[in-house]
Amino acid sequence: MSKGPWLDGDEQKVWRSYLLMRKTLETHLERHLQREFGLSKSDFEILVNLSESESGRMRAFELSRSTQWEKSRLSHHLTRMEKRGLIRKEACDARYPEIVITDEGLRAIRDSAPAQAARVREFFVDVFGPERFAVLGEAADEVVAAIEKHCDTDCSLVDRS
Amino acid sequence: MSKGPWLDGDEQKVWRSYLLMRKTLETHLERHLQREFGLSKSDFEILVNLSESESGRMRAFELSRSTQWEKSRLSHHLTRMEKRGLIRKEACDARYPEIVITDEGLRAIRDSAPAQAARVREFFVDVFGPERFAVLGEAADEVVAAIEKHCDTDCSLVDRS
Repeated sequence: MSKGPWLDGDEQKVWRSYLLMRKTLETHLERHLQREFGLSKSDFEILVNLSESESGRMRAFELSRSTQWEKSRLSHHLTRMEKRGLIRKEACDARYPEIVITDEGLRAIRDSAPAQAARVREFFVDVFGPERFAVLGEAADEVVAAIEKHCDTDCSLVDRS
Repeated sequence: MSKGPWLDGDEQKVWRSYLLMRKTLETHLERHLQREFGLSKSDFEILVNLSESESGRMRAFELSRSTQWEKSRLSHHLTRMEKRGLIRKEACDARYPEIVITDEGLRAIRDSAPAQAARVREFFVDVFGPERFAVLGEAADEVVAAIEKHCDTDCSLVDRS
């Protein structure tokens, strides 16, 4: 008999464990980021993307693609970050301004990233250990590939406009 | 030499794979939930909690604990769900109203949960396969335990008020 849509007891248990880990780890990282550096996880995500781009600048549609955020959410968030001096918009093209990380934004990411990395190591990488961590990485890549394959034919996963 | 806070190349790669899986899977599940059933992931999370509670009712502080949401976020979201008829507040105690799932809320979760479960199975459980899925569950529990142990002594993970 083929399995129905419902998860069986063991599957359900692991799914719940995964959800709880995801949430607990995320909450832990976010609270420290906010308390110690005054950054939200959304700020951090934008700053990581910009600071790793070739010249600290990206088009909004590139940021939208790499964050998988809807355009309106991205636009509102960038406006708030601009007011706080973390990024600025440069209108080299009226429709598609470039988003540029400021010196203050660079300082914020350079201050906060090592502390975040240390927490990820302590509570995630080291708890998994090398073998289980490698298994996770391999399976994670396969999950992404499966969803992307499905979405190429059946849905639009990200707003590609 | 002990490792510094930074993740090394392989660790960084797996961490990124994990983050991408988490986001891709979550985005995929959320978009379908919204399109097919008009529910956000926050609606779904509240409805799952209430529908699994003993009598379809919980105190707000219990919901806050199980969702790990801040009180103000929870309160705003419950107000919006009440307006849409998915829950109602029953003031058996002026300070701590009970949150009760309505018939409409029950219908919403009964309609949407099997479709969500089927997607979780197809794109997550089946892609991992039983062995790797069991490894994930075991490690996930250890990550949660490590953060809880740390937070018992060093920080308040959730708002326990």
